[in-house]
Amino acid sequence: MTVVDDTTEAVGTGLMQAVIMLDGALELVTVPIPTPGPREVLVKVRATGICGSDLHCLAHTSELLAAAKVVTGADLFDIHKPVVMGHEFCAEVVAYGPETRGTLPPGTRVASPGFLLRDPFILLGYGGTDIPGGYAEYMLLSEDLLAPVPDHVPDEIAALAEPMTVALHAVNRGKLGPDDVPLVIGCGPIGLAVIAILKMRGIGPIVAADFSPSRREMARELGADVVVDPAEASPYESWRQVAETGDPERMARPNVLFPPGLRPAAVFECVGIPGMIQQVLAGAPACSKVIVAGVCMEPDSFLPSVAILKEIDLVFTIAFTLEEYQEVLGHLASGALQVAPMVTDRVGLAEVPEAFARLSKPGQDVKIVVVPAGH
Amino acid sequence: MTVVDDTTEAVGTGLMQAVIMLDGALELVTVPIPTPGPREVLVKVRATGICGSDLHCLAHTSELLAAAKVVTGADLFDIHKPVVMGHEFCAEVVAYGPETRGTLPPGTRVASPGFLLRDPFILLGYGGTDIPGGYAEYMLLSEDLLAPVPDHVPDEIAALAEPMTVALHAVNRGKLGPDDVPLVIGCGPIGLAVIAILKMRGIGPIVAADFSPSRREMARELGADVVVDPAEASPYESWRQVAETGDPERMARPNVLFPPGLRPAAVFECVGIPGMIQQVLAGAPACSKVIVAGVCMEPDSFLPSVAILKEIDLVFTIAFTLEEYQEVLGHLASGALQVAPMVTDRVGLAEVPEAFARLSKPGQDVKIVVVPAGH
Repeated sequence: MTVVDDTTEAVGTGLMQAVIMLDGALELVTVPIPTPGPREVLVKVRATGICGSDLHCLAHTSELLAAAKVVTGADLFDIHKPVVMGHEFCAEVVAYGPETRGTLPPGTRVASPGFLLRDPFILLGYGGTDIPGGYAEYMLLSEDLLAPVPDHVPDEIAALAEPMTVALHAVNRGKLGPDDVPLVIGCGPIGLAVIAILKMRGIGPIVAADFSPSRREMARELGADVVVDPAEASPYESWRQVAETGDPERMARPNVLFPPGLRPAAVFECVGIPGMIQQVLAGAPACSKVIVAGVCMEPDSFLPSVAILKEIDLVFTIAFTLEEYQEVLGHLASGALQVAPMVTDRVGLAEVPEAFARLSKPGQDVKIVVVPAGH
Repeated sequence: MTVVDDTTEAVGTGLMQAVIMLDGALELVTVPIPTPGPREVLVKVRATGICGSDLHCLAHTSELLAAAKVVTGADLFDIHKPVVMGHEFCAEVVAYGPETRGTLPPGTRVASPGFLLRDPFILLGYGGTDIPGGYAEYMLLSEDLLAPVPDHVPDEIAALAEPMTVALHAVNRGKLGPDDVPLVIGCGPIGLAVIAILKMRGIGPIVAADFSPSRREMARELGADVVVDPAEASPYESWRQVAETGDPERMARPNVLFPPGLRPAAVFECVGIPGMIQQVLAGAPACSKVIVAGVCMEPDSFLPSVAILKEIDLVFTIAFTLEEYQEVLGHLASGALQVAPMVTDRVGLAEVPEAFARLSKPGQDVKIVVVPAGH
């Protein structure tokens, strides 16, 4: 891979490197540097996190497109054209398009939620090489969404703002009360991010479960109070031990089916493979809130009768609000939110395909950050 | 069927008639009149509503037992022994067991939620002939749960308190705000009950959908503002027309995926057959609350990705609180809740098997009430 050190020169050549997805494979190619439209800014990518949903997008392209079409009625992207993924990024300002204010000088490091304010708005990371995501040297951002990154916040931490906001939104969607005892199933990037947010909010004790010893260790580092290896013990049993109030009369929610004496349960499903939802429904206490943050792209089956008899709330979550994104940037800058341990490796653009392959298998990795300028 | 007119005489013989479920079939048999335990009251059944869940219990006995076992860890009932169903009832006091206060004189008409306060508590309608449900001439109730029925409230309306409470609880579970526009899918007994509760609460406009013209007519009678035949038009499209605010900037919940300009959606799934949940997920607007009140006893499949991309809340509901039951009795007594049209037929105990068969097929029937003393 050629490392582009001189921004001006690279822009002068008009070419950049980008990792495209086409026909279910990733490839490093040379493409034109995109041109900012009205109210848009050309930025140089400094760091982009590899997201689990990008792995899903590569492995289950047709399923994702089918689901997105059900939701929006439109095609998320054209399966026959190259797509440049990557929606968790930190970048620096290079050049302004028309109708911009240009208040942040070139070189300013910026973060932005992953979409362009066109009409209709465009999700970055699902566009072609003309509106690439962060697996490229350059990309376009909407000026109105730029947030300057304070000097003391590293690129990769700013890039983590996006997945941390997904987790904050998941916690917000769960509307946890002060009495709720959270159980986090799966300590991949989203599970760990949920743990960090819960810890920051002072919600706990936090019970977390994962088969991987290194992920359990990281869960503890990020704030889990009890970590469980599901191969050795039931996470739901561990939860019950923690949630016992010692008051046999106390009920979390009035319901004859709810075992008395327990605090209310908020279970975060952060695995996202078929069968997980039923597993959680079967294990979770009656009247649980189950926040589904794991992204399962395949058809799934479950027993509605179990959910019904337990009066479960299944709260599906994926996106976030601009306010939530700004809130997370603030917490990362203030140090209230500590997530540095989540970054387990850095790679260049040429190594993205190998990093995807690595993340698709169980292992030591949590968040791999792509550094287009070399690392 | 022999009609038992003289309570004292019947109790003297010690025998009564009851409809038992055994090996997937219903049968009218003669069994001993049950004996009230401590804090229990022997009552004569005056009217019992046939509930959809009883139809499910007969048609899907093993599935119900399996689901209940997942939920409680125990067997709901012994599949090899006769069960007397019926949990929507109105009765009259006959005799008091030990440790009772006996404040309501014999002959007092009473209602009660469908369970006995034993330890552990017992769901009436799933017990044997010693603790029968309402498809019998006599049953046992807990004195502490008895509510006297005012003279002007007919037996069958008091019996409807139970399903009306299920509907009130479903509406409460949905936590509808003043801005929510409800869409009721399926106008069987529970769908119609939900419509009546929404109407009473002043939540609307109410959109309701059912393939049956007579049920659509009844939906309108009970309070639906817009009724849709799904064979002719999409209920979701009709909902959109009603929920349009005319303000393109307005968003029901901040989310880039949510089409602006719509009021928030609360969809009540009141059908309960496999495939319905996915159908609702596909049709419902993004960010909908979907309250699942239909009881599907079979395994079901769905696309979690659609629920995730739309950020749906799937709120499963079945039970209720004692306070909700008391509230509904109050509304039925005051006339705030008008549900008389829901009762479409009355049958004796001998006709229960035929009534079950009739209710299992699409038809004119909504709520059939069993009157053990003859009708």
